[in-house]
Amino acid sequence: MGAKAIVLAAGQGTRMRSAKPKMLHDILGRPLVGWVVGAVAAAGVDQCVVVVGHHADDVTAALPDGTLTALQAEQLGTGHAARTGLAALDVSGDDTVLVLPGDHPLIRPETLQRLLAAHTGSGAAATLLTVTAADPRGYGRILRDGDRVTGIVEEADADDAQRAITEVGISFYAFSGVLLGPALDALGNDNAQGEYYLTDVIGELVAAGHRVGAVAADPEDGIGVNSQSQLAEAAALLRRRINLHWMDQGVWMADPSRVSIGPDVTLEPDVRLHPDVHLEGTVTVAADAEIGPSVYARDSGIGAGARVWYSVLRDADIGAAAEVGPFVSLRPGAVLLERAKAGTFVEIKASVVGAGSKVPHLSYVGDADIGAGANIGAGTIVANYDGYRKHRTVIGEGVKVGANTTLVAPVSLGDEAWTGAGTVVTGDVNSGALAVGRAATREIPGYAARRRARAKRDET
Amino acid sequence: MGAKAIVLAAGQGTRMRSAKPKMLHDILGRPLVGWVVGAVAAAGVDQCVVVVGHHADDVTAALPDGTLTALQAEQLGTGHAARTGLAALDVSGDDTVLVLPGDHPLIRPETLQRLLAAHTGSGAAATLLTVTAADPRGYGRILRDGDRVTGIVEEADADDAQRAITEVGISFYAFSGVLLGPALDALGNDNAQGEYYLTDVIGELVAAGHRVGAVAADPEDGIGVNSQSQLAEAAALLRRRINLHWMDQGVWMADPSRVSIGPDVTLEPDVRLHPDVHLEGTVTVAADAEIGPSVYARDSGIGAGARVWYSVLRDADIGAAAEVGPFVSLRPGAVLLERAKAGTFVEIKASVVGAGSKVPHLSYVGDADIGAGANIGAGTIVANYDGYRKHRTVIGEGVKVGANTTLVAPVSLGDEAWTGAGTVVTGDVNSGALAVGRAATREIPGYAARRRARAKRDET
Amino acid sequence: MGAKAIVLAAGQGTRMRSAKPKMLHDILGRPLVGWVVGAVAAAGVDQCVVVVGHHADDVTAALPDGTLTALQAEQLGTGHAARTGLAALDVSGDDTVLVLPGDHPLIRPETLQRLLAAHTGSGAAATLLTVTAADPRGYGRILRDGDRVTGIVEEADADDAQRAITEVGISFYAFSGVLLGPALDALGNDNAQGEYYLTDVIGELVAAGHRVGAVAADPEDGIGVNSQSQLAEAAALLRRRINLHWMDQGVWMADPSRVSIGPDVTLEPDVRLHPDVHLEGTVTVAADAEIGPSVYARDSGIGAGARVWYSVLRDADIGAAAEVGPFVSLRPGAVLLERAKAGTFVEIKASVVGAGSKVPHLSYVGDADIGAGANIGAGTIVANYDGYRKHRTVIGEGVKVGANTTLVAPVSLGDEAWTGAGTVVTGDVNSGALAVGRAATREIPGYAARRRARAKRDET
Repeated sequence: MGAKAIVLAAGQGTRMRSAKPKMLHDILGRPLVGWVVGAVAAAGVDQCVVVVGHHADDVTAALPDGTLTALQAEQLGTGHAARTGLAALDVSGDDTVLVLPGDHPLIRPETLQRLLAAHTGSGAAATLLTVTAADPRGYGRILRDGDRVTGIVEEADADDAQRAITEVGISFYAFSGVLLGPALDALGNDNAQGEYYLTDVIGELVAAGHRVGAVAADPEDGIGVNSQSQLAEAAALLRRRINLHWMDQGVWMADPSRVSIGPDVTLEPDVRLHPDVHLEGTVTVAADAEIGPSVYARDSGIGAGARVWYSVLRDADIGAAAEVGPFVSLRPGAVLLERAKAGTFVEIKASVVGAGSKVPHLSYVGDADIGAGANIGAGTIVANYDGYRKHRTVIGEGVKVGANTTLVAPVSLGDEAWTGAGTVVTGDVNSGALAVGRAATREIPGYAARRRARAKRDET
Repeated sequence: MGAKAIVLAAGQGTRMRSAKPKMLHDILGRPLVGWVVGAVAAAGVDQCVVVVGHHADDVTAALPDGTLTALQAEQLGTGHAARTGLAALDVSGDDTVLVLPGDHPLIRPETLQRLLAAHTGSGAAATLLTVTAADPRGYGRILRDGDRVTGIVEEADADDAQRAITEVGISFYAFSGVLLGPALDALGNDNAQGEYYLTDVIGELVAAGHRVGAVAADPEDGIGVNSQSQLAEAAALLRRRINLHWMDQGVWMADPSRVSIGPDVTLEPDVRLHPDVHLEGTVTVAADAEIGPSVYARDSGIGAGARVWYSVLRDADIGAAAEVGPFVSLRPGAVLLERAKAGTFVEIKASVVGAGSKVPHLSYVGDADIGAGANIGAGTIVANYDGYRKHRTVIGEGVKVGANTTLVAPVSLGDEAWTGAGTVVTGDVNSGALAVGRAATREIPGYAARRRARAKRDET
Repeated sequence: MGAKAIVLAAGQGTRMRSAKPKMLHDILGRPLVGWVVGAVAAAGVDQCVVVVGHHADDVTAALPDGTLTALQAEQLGTGHAARTGLAALDVSGDDTVLVLPGDHPLIRPETLQRLLAAHTGSGAAATLLTVTAADPRGYGRILRDGDRVTGIVEEADADDAQRAITEVGISFYAFSGVLLGPALDALGNDNAQGEYYLTDVIGELVAAGHRVGAVAADPEDGIGVNSQSQLAEAAALLRRRINLHWMDQGVWMADPSRVSIGPDVTLEPDVRLHPDVHLEGTVTVAADAEIGPSVYARDSGIGAGARVWYSVLRDADIGAAAEVGPFVSLRPGAVLLERAKAGTFVEIKASVVGAGSKVPHLSYVGDADIGAGANIGAGTIVANYDGYRKHRTVIGEGVKVGANTTLVAPVSLGDEAWTGAGTVVTGDVNSGALAVGRAATREIPGYAARRRARAKRDET
């Protein structure tokens, strides 16, 4: 009584007008087919195979690790694709096999569960998902005798009465495992395209006296993607769906139409999201953090009560009550401990900024470990790259780095050390000491007048 | 014949799923209840009390200074809340008392004025705001006998005919001051919740033979906020309303759906607003200023013809024809006089930049006074913080600060003074003089070859 | 059998509440009237005159070079304006003359071509564009006898039956060239405004027994702009139309509602556009380039596979696979060759960055030529401005500039040269040599303790 699934993802999708296969086009950082595979997994299906064809290697590489795939070497139609997929599954007699299109990213796990529940024990050989379409043109109309489906008639073959039917199939099926294989084997390809059509299985099963059922889905479940603009519309609906979910969990959004949250993001209640926030990949945000306007964060963690705005974070971690921005770039390995601050025009990578430490202005910190309570002066550069290799810098607790300091790694500043403004530090500095290196300043009187005269002379 | 108002703001709003009371959730920088209090004030009401309960201190603190509040210590229903509020008002016999929900931020002052006008002199004991709802479910239906209201029947108590009524109450009332108190005192709490309901007052008044009237409002006036998504929808409508207002005043917007203007902002005609502009708090923008894309400005002034883009301003003032951005942060006390320029990657705080002076690139200017016509070289840092205290820097008119200069405050540069590139200035510089401090540069031939060899050796 | 056109653009547009004439208000970087003139040109019209009046010089200056204009010195109505325009055209007997309003930016070239095609050879004296309006109020209703137009009746003059007509005129006309002049000359101004109305020509022609035809247009073609909010709505429709066009060409957009593409932009398939991208003026983007979030690019070229985000580009060129951002400003004359990189907080102007060269962090590069494979250290300033003039800097191939270096132009670094961190380079550096200038650093022990003691003393 298990559930298996076959996701059909072999097509190129020429209407996308892209060199990339349709299945790999991106919605919220996840490829199109990944949304379907994700819904199948969330529905609790035991085993899922993705049938790949065009750009099979690229599509396979984009699937979650461990996803089973089957190669449809020739594009001989959806029936042939389903047969290819079925061969890769371990199906026992009383299993249900879902067959799904890989380009319908809005399918909900709950809908698949309803389809499985309706099919299981119903005695039906197959159960379809159908929707009532405001405009059914182009879809196969569902023919019924009461609650039994008696056929699907394609637009081209429909008479006027059939064309008026608004219940249409959306290419999601549950099949009795024991019947699907023989039915697929029996399919013919005697049609204009010379292809094996999965829809023909329904007619076959009905003709053989089997019962076929149907479950109504929300029209949103049935939205397929065939063009760039349909992809964008699907993305808009997914963003909206995700945002409504998080608002229901107590997340505040100033303008949800301008917030983009990926499927692997976790937000706590009372997170505040301003416009133009993009959370991609695995991002977690703790309660009371305030993010945006204008933040891109990928694969990052943001602690409780932290404040991030006008900044870009990649593989970064920000502690509780930390402050980031405006205008900060945190690159992989940037870790700000609690109450740390990365201010304005600051870039940090592969570095730890200690609790309560501040990097307020115009600094680059790379490959450094900064202790608690330090202050890094404006214009400080941690010169981690010697032209060939990167080296680490260690800055102790309570260190005060002066403005426009250059720290030439590897170098170590002891706790409570100071550096003078404009100093180039090339050796270690002891705890509590001041390192200062600066040429004596001389004053040259009357310089402005001479320069002005010279400029005048140059003009003539 | 005065008008008083009671704003009911005691609830927690559990459907917000927030630790913060609903009344304090933010729309355009103003808490939810602040929109209602603002509408009451704009409608010309003489005295207004806000009934607070959950998080009473926080709600009180968020109200405009001087707002009268009354504490409803126990949550015993809207009738009890109104009574609590009434006790705090000075109501004379012929006053009208408005009772309003604190969570309906879209109420317009004009609508309240219409309600007051309709009530006053009508002889009615009470007058309700009602709207015709496309979907009346969940609202109390208005029962009428001609233009007299004969009752409000709640959804649960309504028969089929009553449920078909689309005129519903939206919890805004005008009451005869002399009748409200006794009516509230007479309320019972014999219902499922054991609460005192303000709506029951209407039934009481009708039963006692009093006349109750109704005034139709725009459905937008009646939108209440009970969840985060409703808050976001209300915010969208308020943004739209405000933006239409300013466009009607001659403000150009490339895309009003991406412009966010707070209620205390003032714009002159021919202001140009590009997308992703946020104007919060008290902001004034003079004619022909062009703002955005991507600007956040709070409590700031922007002069005529100024240009600001990709920047963040807090408590800053920008003179006429000044230029700011892209990528500038102006912090509290930053003042740019006319034609001054803060260019790219520039942060300024608590400083005056003189007329026509330029801070074009990669500079931090803190606690400085810069005269007119100065030029601050790229990479200049005004080191205002000595590790313990901040000090001021004075830069005269026409000063030319060289690239990568560090000015260690307190320091003063006379008019027309120059500094050499890379100089650390720790003492005052006289007018017209050049301050220069820089180590002699030596050239070490063949360095690249030796470094390459060493790098190769290190690899092996 | 040629086609000529008269664009009426003389009005001020007082409902815009702007000091600027309506015709010059901006949509996607092009003035309102420019959209109409552009559609006329794209429709293949032989000669076009724009009738200017209010702010005639400003409007003329904003038109494409070489556009013919005619000055309507007095505002005597649309009929007078058309006569003024006609006088400036070379019209022969069998020409068709289009007359169009300058404030209808959504008119499509295809619609004008359909109008011309329908008129030519139809034997009609005039042919109108009409639309079926959901709400016809305010528009002139089209009276018909079969496919012949028998008149246009203005709202004010219409009886109830006429008001129910939903086919309305949208002020676009094709006239027989030989008949237009006499018809305009015959117009009277015996009406409330004392103006000559172009619509009256239709009545005249019908009365004289001429045939008048009509062509149905999409309602979008007929949208005129009379207020700032209508301008914003028209801009939204144009953005949408342009974005759909590019998506049909294979461009990926995460959220087309937040992408703004001007009419002179060219995109190749598989360009990826994230939100908050503004492409203005003449911009070309090659295949597989990924742009955004948050990019403004004007008059710039972006090569295949390049990556640009959180950046501003003006008159810049970026080669294939180049990387820009986050937080970069490329100003006029910035050229990045293939695989070059401008990283974080970098400003470049009038400079070439060689193939594969990197300017990763916190640098200003002005008036410099950088060879291939160079690395510019963080905090580097090319000090191109000596206070009076700008000078060029030359940086050879494979040069490694150390952190916080200042290059005082004019200066030249030979191939493979190095500079030490913090060096101020004022003279040329030979190939392969290291230039280093830096004061010796001394260490002052116990400094932190003394400073702390002093700070404590100062407090008391």
